[in-house]
Amino acid sequence: MTALPPGATIGILGGGQLGRMLSVAASRLGYKTCVFEPAGDCPASHVANFHLQAGYDDVGALARFADAVDVVTYEFENIPTSALDALEARRPIRPGRRALAVSQDRLTEKAFLTDLGLTCAPFRDIPDLAALQAALADLGTPAILKTRRLGYDGKGQVRIDSADQAGAAFDAMAGADAILEGFVDFQREVSVIAARGLSGEVVCYDPGENVHRDGILRTTTVPATLTASQRMDAALLAGRILNALDYVGVMGVELFVTPGGLVVNEVAPRVHNSGHWTQAGCAVDQFEQHIRAVAGLPLGDGQRQVDVVMENLIGDDMDRLPDLLAAPATQVHLYGKAEVRAGRKMGHVNRFTAA
Amino acid sequence: MTALPPGATIGILGGGQLGRMLSVAASRLGYKTCVFEPAGDCPASHVANFHLQAGYDDVGALARFADAVDVVTYEFENIPTSALDALEARRPIRPGRRALAVSQDRLTEKAFLTDLGLTCAPFRDIPDLAALQAALADLGTPAILKTRRLGYDGKGQVRIDSADQAGAAFDAMAGADAILEGFVDFQREVSVIAARGLSGEVVCYDPGENVHRDGILRTTTVPATLTASQRMDAALLAGRILNALDYVGVMGVELFVTPGGLVVNEVAPRVHNSGHWTQAGCAVDQFEQHIRAVAGLPLGDGQRQVDVVMENLIGDDMDRLPDLLAAPATQVHLYGKAEVRAGRKMGHVNRFTAA
Repeated sequence: MTALPPGATIGILGGGQLGRMLSVAASRLGYKTCVFEPAGDCPASHVANFHLQAGYDDVGALARFADAVDVVTYEFENIPTSALDALEARRPIRPGRRALAVSQDRLTEKAFLTDLGLTCAPFRDIPDLAALQAALADLGTPAILKTRRLGYDGKGQVRIDSADQAGAAFDAMAGADAILEGFVDFQREVSVIAARGLSGEVVCYDPGENVHRDGILRTTTVPATLTASQRMDAALLAGRILNALDYVGVMGVELFVTPGGLVVNEVAPRVHNSGHWTQAGCAVDQFEQHIRAVAGLPLGDGQRQVDVVMENLIGDDMDRLPDLLAAPATQVHLYGKAEVRAGRKMGHVNRFTAA
Repeated sequence: MTALPPGATIGILGGGQLGRMLSVAASRLGYKTCVFEPAGDCPASHVANFHLQAGYDDVGALARFADAVDVVTYEFENIPTSALDALEARRPIRPGRRALAVSQDRLTEKAFLTDLGLTCAPFRDIPDLAALQAALADLGTPAILKTRRLGYDGKGQVRIDSADQAGAAFDAMAGADAILEGFVDFQREVSVIAARGLSGEVVCYDPGENVHRDGILRTTTVPATLTASQRMDAALLAGRILNALDYVGVMGVELFVTPGGLVVNEVAPRVHNSGHWTQAGCAVDQFEQHIRAVAGLPLGDGQRQVDVVMENLIGDDMDRLPDLLAAPATQVHLYGKAEVRAGRKMGHVNRFTAA
């Protein structure tokens, strides 16, 4: 277990805003970056040393990418298995494949978490309409039917408010494997951004309190409204997940806070939108923490120094940019996306609030 | 006076660590960057969108550079006049040429500052050895003989402790135009990082207290040990300098604190090593502040949120990297320089100290 020396190259699969901010963090530590991304002029390509523009099915390009880098990481979890196979033969992939397997499939994820003794929303595998009807009878409504794979930002999900909506909801899955999740009556949503180093050390950032709208994260506030024991529980369960996966890197763990305790909503094996506040609040932010982990460096100090509210800039939120740039105690982060589209994450702001 | 829209390209002359951190700051605001730098694999090229590798005497390359960018700025003040002429015909240069003229020549600089009513070290123009001998008789010893142009980090300077060293000191200038500066008996050295926007607004960061060794900045500590009135004086004199130059961008103003008041040591028309602490201490750091100014955006909030000590990593300070990476409350910034050399700035650390 040796740390990558300054000047080494970190390969990043995915060229979006997370890859962009990972690339900047890598540069801060003296590393070079190579971004693998099919799209041209992508956010990460603006700040990376190299951009390898090719598809995830291009085995030759993946091999060249692997040969050009010292370690491979990623900004999204839905990387095709064949691409991982091609890469793993040549370079370490961090976080490892077990984390990807767990997070790529909601059914596998829930089974893993439940096996660990953690509480998830009640769930049922839904191979067919009959299974959905039985599950609805069992779990009741409201409930949410979700594709097992490839869902994000509220996509691939249908809320079911009564049993007679079962047929339409099942059809909306368009034949994709699905699971039904029972309703969790939560008081608030929080997330823990946790990191595990190559040597097994684990650190957690202070939990953030999240507000979603239309399935998309709008704001994260730190500190979250949590009791001391909930705060401790959140860190302990995140640590349990990371250790069980022999994880290396940063993970986002989304939690529901309920009167009965913390319920794990989902895990993301990567830096997470709800961790962007760490750019303003900590000596070492989640992006650098992830780079430190995958590079084999010691983890950095993620202690929260100030209170922060992070707000995503989505679609025409960009019209507010002149005001945001002039606002006190406010950091603006833009992603360099050429086109503003409804629902598209264009940037975020971190606001210092009274400590 | 219109602000550059996101997606515009900022041209940066010089590809060192200051250009690197300017480029990262520009990306945060959604801008692209093009770095003009003769050396390959330079620190700024790792994070810039484009690197135009050519010499400052290559008028064709300068024209291509200007055509590729929306505004030109720079990370060092010793840009040849001919290069500025070629650029200025095509694109605005910010900060403007008057600031460069003042800071490129110590004699012009001191005359400018004195005309503004500010106090500098006593100085004399030294065209020949006789002038040096007369100046030494007048100003006394110790005194410092400095080249008028191209000095930095203690280079191009000779300390004179007695009149009989005049001949050797004069010879050390190797025929370069020089000035003699009288000794200032200062209590401490501080600097003010100040910014002026395109619309004329001025903001100052909290002054930092600097410690030099062998002519090179070692540490900057904020807050500096200053009285309230010294703090106010520092901001007022920085504002006077910026306004007199119709300045656009960030400037570093180095000051000696003496019992008689503040004495201006020198000004740098660019982001400044003694302002690196702002990366850890403020919502908007000096690099982003500079980009905001040259892009015509409103200046950001530079209020100090925490106490910070910045320490430069010079030469084999890099051997301490493993310890620094593991230290609490510490940010490490490396510049991506391939080769460690004695006296070479390889990076810096920002440490949060008790507020």
